[in-house]
Amino acid sequence: MTKARPAFTPPATSDLGSLPLALTQGDPAGIGPEIAIKAWLQRDSEALPPFFLLSDPAFIAARAARLGLDLPMATVTPEMAGAAFASALPIVDTGHSVAVEPGRPSASTAASTIASIDEAVALTFTGRAAAVVTNPIAKHVLYEAGFRHPGHTEYLAALAAQHSSAGSAEPLPVMMLWSPALAVVPVTIHIALAEVPRLLTTALIVETARIVARDLTSRFGIAAPRLAFAGLNPHAGEGGAMGREDIETIAPAIAALRGEGIDARGPLPADTLFHAAARASYDAVLCMYHDQALIPIKTIAFDDAVNVTLGLPIVRTSPDHGTAFDIAARGIARPDSLCAALRLAARLAATRAG
Amino acid sequence: MTKARPAFTPPATSDLGSLPLALTQGDPAGIGPEIAIKAWLQRDSEALPPFFLLSDPAFIAARAARLGLDLPMATVTPEMAGAAFASALPIVDTGHSVAVEPGRPSASTAASTIASIDEAVALTFTGRAAAVVTNPIAKHVLYEAGFRHPGHTEYLAALAAQHSSAGSAEPLPVMMLWSPALAVVPVTIHIALAEVPRLLTTALIVETARIVARDLTSRFGIAAPRLAFAGLNPHAGEGGAMGREDIETIAPAIAALRGEGIDARGPLPADTLFHAAARASYDAVLCMYHDQALIPIKTIAFDDAVNVTLGLPIVRTSPDHGTAFDIAARGIARPDSLCAALRLAARLAATRAG
Repeated sequence: MTKARPAFTPPATSDLGSLPLALTQGDPAGIGPEIAIKAWLQRDSEALPPFFLLSDPAFIAARAARLGLDLPMATVTPEMAGAAFASALPIVDTGHSVAVEPGRPSASTAASTIASIDEAVALTFTGRAAAVVTNPIAKHVLYEAGFRHPGHTEYLAALAAQHSSAGSAEPLPVMMLWSPALAVVPVTIHIALAEVPRLLTTALIVETARIVARDLTSRFGIAAPRLAFAGLNPHAGEGGAMGREDIETIAPAIAALRGEGIDARGPLPADTLFHAAARASYDAVLCMYHDQALIPIKTIAFDDAVNVTLGLPIVRTSPDHGTAFDIAARGIARPDSLCAALRLAARLAATRAG
Repeated sequence: MTKARPAFTPPATSDLGSLPLALTQGDPAGIGPEIAIKAWLQRDSEALPPFFLLSDPAFIAARAARLGLDLPMATVTPEMAGAAFASALPIVDTGHSVAVEPGRPSASTAASTIASIDEAVALTFTGRAAAVVTNPIAKHVLYEAGFRHPGHTEYLAALAAQHSSAGSAEPLPVMMLWSPALAVVPVTIHIALAEVPRLLTTALIVETARIVARDLTSRFGIAAPRLAFAGLNPHAGEGGAMGREDIETIAPAIAALRGEGIDARGPLPADTLFHAAARASYDAVLCMYHDQALIPIKTIAFDDAVNVTLGLPIVRTSPDHGTAFDIAARGIARPDSLCAALRLAARLAATRAG
């Protein structure tokens, strides 16, 4: 049984900073439940903000027992979660019972996984949660159950459009990978490398960068964000000697953004853009493709990078890893990235509230 | 006046470890002279092996004076350099006088720059120097003077072929970027990103990897080198969902190399290949394009990465940066990468000798 979705009410933004975070279940056959439990157990040493987990309380209790973890739990409403958090992991029951073996994903759990996301978004839109933090899902499991969105982020964008005023366009969700040392945004993401030069357009770069600049101000509190742009080609094309895209596609985007008053610089050679001294010169780097963005951040911040979705009317963060079915419920999954995602979500929600 | 090149005599390899290194002048309008002087001044704290600089003694003296550095110098033969090194920077005179303003490269210096390279290679082939360490050159300056090779490395390969037995094929020079933390080899290098999928072939990957494996053993002393291969596409193509090259081009190369007894693994997702724990699992990574290799190493080892040319019959290293005309003779250039290149060259020459 799925709970009815609350009617849309604009959140009282001044309260966002004190609200708990809504953490989704993610794929229950993956490491999501384990890292959620471990995060709560480490709430003091990790300085975590209050959160509640949207799942099946009986399933979470069974998973904790299987892991040999002594876990106090409280089944709560979102309003009770903040008070409960100090002494028990607050669970908001999705109404779906979950039964699955760790490491053996099953389409039978898809409804609970999706309900958990739906509920987290609804609670955030209605001012009952500060932000959404999502545990990893496996798209292929949801596809088997009829899910028709390209991925987690696109689904959140679709939900956001439903919750926003009728007729509003679906927002462009922008993926940022964030760590205290580096923030990167891949302009193109999950496409073959050979497709990148064709699908990279001046318009896409401009639209992406506008959202990054706007959200760095409104959510991260950076008054005048400094955006660096990585070149597509080696040495940013070396004046056109190694590819024309840096001159013909990226440079015009930067010129347009500067014309709008955005501090945009580049295209810069990507190889010398990510060492410590270079990182001090910008707030985020717009990268032209997946590995150009993810190689540097996963090299220097492998355990605590956070995936942040910009461009949505709500705050959403996520750990920067997948379901890790191969190590599910073996007791070795590290909650570091989830803890970082929880802390960042609270910070961003508080900035929006301020 | 250029010195006559000595006739070819096979070097007495058992002596290589005690011979000095031949350091080329590089473009005299760049930072090469400054970092050579600074490296010698820091020879004790940097634990540098003996080397001599191939240049014009009067020019080096003038550059030291301009930098306000008190530099004892000795104009020597290669045979005298080892003994002189403790108390003076040994200079082997190329016979070309050099006059150029820092930061204002001039084709008039091309002959001296090229003579310095020719001499270093000849001295190494004839057993009068242990290895070649090259200061940065500017190709466009040499082109103006009629130089017809694609770059520094290709020129060294051509010289090596001249010095080797008559009729031997020009060796395939392979660029490795090395630091104590990470070694990477870009299989394709200075080409537009859009050209990479087309120019990346199974044969090129196999040929490159064979040279890497052979030289990691013969020069680096690694008995059974472990080679990791980065995938071309995001997530190494995710089973073909994002590009077929990982399956159709890279995987067959790895299979062929394994068939030859080489420890080759992959293709692996590039983004999770360079963090500290991953780096412990291999000796070098074969990367499919320039930025995939250079982003991680310049991110974690910006000041002390070394460019090593594999596949040549002599040892050649180089600092991993360019001429830096914009900061030439301003006193701020750091010799870190040159010092690392000198140390590595001595180590590799000693291993070959062993």
